[in-house]
Amino acid sequence: MDLELVRQLAQESDSKIVLFVMDGLGGLPHPETGRTELEAAWTPHLDNIARDSSCGFTIPVGIGITPGSGPGHLALFGYDPLVYTIGRGVLEATGIDFELQPSDVAARGNFCTIDGEGKITDRRAGRIPTEKCAELCAELQKIKLEGVQTFVQPVREHRFVLVLRGDSLSDEVKDTDPERLGAKPLAAEPSGQGGAATAALVNRWLGEAQKTLAGCEPANMLLLRGFARRPDWPSMPETFKLRAAAVAHYPMYRGLAKLVGMEALPVGPALEDSIATLRENWGRFDYFFVHYKYTDTAGEDGDYDRKVEKLTEVDEAIEGITGLEPDVLMITGDHSTPAIMASHSWHPVPFMLRSKWGRADVCESFNEVALLQGCLGTFPAKEALPLAMAHAGRLRKFGA
Amino acid sequence: MDLELVRQLAQESDSKIVLFVMDGLGGLPHPETGRTELEAAWTPHLDNIARDSSCGFTIPVGIGITPGSGPGHLALFGYDPLVYTIGRGVLEATGIDFELQPSDVAARGNFCTIDGEGKITDRRAGRIPTEKCAELCAELQKIKLEGVQTFVQPVREHRFVLVLRGDSLSDEVKDTDPERLGAKPLAAEPSGQGGAATAALVNRWLGEAQKTLAGCEPANMLLLRGFARRPDWPSMPETFKLRAAAVAHYPMYRGLAKLVGMEALPVGPALEDSIATLRENWGRFDYFFVHYKYTDTAGEDGDYDRKVEKLTEVDEAIEGITGLEPDVLMITGDHSTPAIMASHSWHPVPFMLRSKWGRADVCESFNEVALLQGCLGTFPAKEALPLAMAHAGRLRKFGA
Repeated sequence: MDLELVRQLAQESDSKIVLFVMDGLGGLPHPETGRTELEAAWTPHLDNIARDSSCGFTIPVGIGITPGSGPGHLALFGYDPLVYTIGRGVLEATGIDFELQPSDVAARGNFCTIDGEGKITDRRAGRIPTEKCAELCAELQKIKLEGVQTFVQPVREHRFVLVLRGDSLSDEVKDTDPERLGAKPLAAEPSGQGGAATAALVNRWLGEAQKTLAGCEPANMLLLRGFARRPDWPSMPETFKLRAAAVAHYPMYRGLAKLVGMEALPVGPALEDSIATLRENWGRFDYFFVHYKYTDTAGEDGDYDRKVEKLTEVDEAIEGITGLEPDVLMITGDHSTPAIMASHSWHPVPFMLRSKWGRADVCESFNEVALLQGCLGTFPAKEALPLAMAHAGRLRKFGA
Repeated sequence: MDLELVRQLAQESDSKIVLFVMDGLGGLPHPETGRTELEAAWTPHLDNIARDSSCGFTIPVGIGITPGSGPGHLALFGYDPLVYTIGRGVLEATGIDFELQPSDVAARGNFCTIDGEGKITDRRAGRIPTEKCAELCAELQKIKLEGVQTFVQPVREHRFVLVLRGDSLSDEVKDTDPERLGAKPLAAEPSGQGGAATAALVNRWLGEAQKTLAGCEPANMLLLRGFARRPDWPSMPETFKLRAAAVAHYPMYRGLAKLVGMEALPVGPALEDSIATLRENWGRFDYFFVHYKYTDTAGEDGDYDRKVEKLTEVDEAIEGITGLEPDVLMITGDHSTPAIMASHSWHPVPFMLRSKWGRADVCESFNEVALLQGCLGTFPAKEALPLAMAHAGRLRKFGA
């Protein structure tokens, strides 16, 4: 649903909505057993919920599109990920919980290796350890430029974030990464009318940075990509009329939630921490996004058995959420991460929604085969929140 | 399908299409029996048709969106209800079968109560009886303004319609309803460039109306909303190349049908009246919209048992339609009205289409669970007519 239409139809209510996301939930059949991770896992509680829910699958971004974590989550938050895109620099800053101000410009940085002629020989500087990255960022942080404040923060291995803070900065600056070996790093150039001053500033900083990094092989130079400003999107509280909270431990998901106007609650890494935080804050919010990371991690590691274990772990804990009796409970993933692929994938994601106003179907368990009997069919993930709003009595009638 | 594409592909034929709409058809499981109204109803004839049809569900406006009667029907007529919207004033005029001319401007009126200081104390004038409303409208009808003709017609309880007829009127006039108690009714103000003259006219009329209503407590003032002109839409005969007739008793549905260029045939309130009218006019049209209201009325009243009865009533009479052997028969609703909700809802609507060119599925009966096996899946209601056109040999091939 278009956000402008959501804004017109949304109404307040005292109902509560919970979105429980098992990251990378969807799977594929194991070649030996023919069973997906969800089929193999012992999940009596989730199966019970499925029997009592409207079931189906979501498509996070589009048919055949493998989503990153950003688009996968934004869709579940009701934001069309093809419309609400986030610049690379902002995503990277968000991922390390850096509090971007509206006028900041962020870029993603890579340390790289250049030879004596200044030509790139390794675009990732041999994937230096994260500790080394942090050390070099601390050195780069010492660079002072007139009229602008700079922040240089490590991410992981060769990756870092550069944030410029100052008046009248522009994000209309092109990448300095030529994206091929044997070429020299590019100077920053404006990509649009307003970018000239900021590009010049970036070039002054690059000059200083190159001096700082001289002799630090393999990380003796750097490349900048994805200059971007924090997006100014319609906020969830204002658009959906929901006081929304994120119960997520990892910075990336907290950051995404904050970009759409959720309050990111402090929470530990374990599922029981999430459930405790949910319980403690139950009265304060209308909508809770609860994030569980470890299904995805296991999937990404190609560890089928561990993904099955993690699903079982969720099953054993899920009563901590159902016991709160939300008016609408959605259980789904942000995308599929089949262990046999050891990566994110484009496959539709198992989804179930429980509410007293839900239509019945004949799904007897929560897995990729049983849910084919679901009454929701396969639908865009961005419609999940409007659907939940309807079931929660939070959407007015359209037209008379 | 986009109407421009329909126009390009539509071709004439001597085939006949019937759309039979059971208003508010879709339901939800009864909490005691777990069965929906359609599951509970004894409908051997509808079940037989389902076995011989392509089945599925329609989404009237969008996922999670609860449609009013207007959008629900427009979608079934092939018009995207998010694109083809109707102003409140026009919808209200349409609902009482008022023949709007293209240059007329219509507004919805509410009688209201004001106190000695002119502040609103009841926005609905205590919901005066319809007879009282008619009486007051007759008084207001006596107001004469220079250069414009006015029509004041009762709707129901405190609601009426004001229509202005004259040269160069504009619908760019803001509501006079402040939408809160304790405020005074607003003066009419232009909402756009062309609205100043019409707003001034409305204000002169409001001044006279206030004098007329003085002392008529609780209906001693009125509020106007939704100034609008009759929409100028592509017509069904021209776009779909269908001579189209509406067999509907209630003014709202007749009016909607006329807005898209159908001929509204005179018909009595009972289903047998509709079937008689259909039979009598069978040779004159290519497409018939047959409307059955009472499933919705029962649903809106929260009367599960009566809705079940009404479904059975339809089942017993349906051979009057199938006996005419339309080339394509669609049986569906304009939206769901689950009796347990006692209101319209967002749930997808049962749909079946019978034609000799239909693909088979394994639906053994016509209800919300059996139709999940349907070959049409869940699709936007606005695609129903193009789908029927295809089955009726009325859509040319696209591309060579």
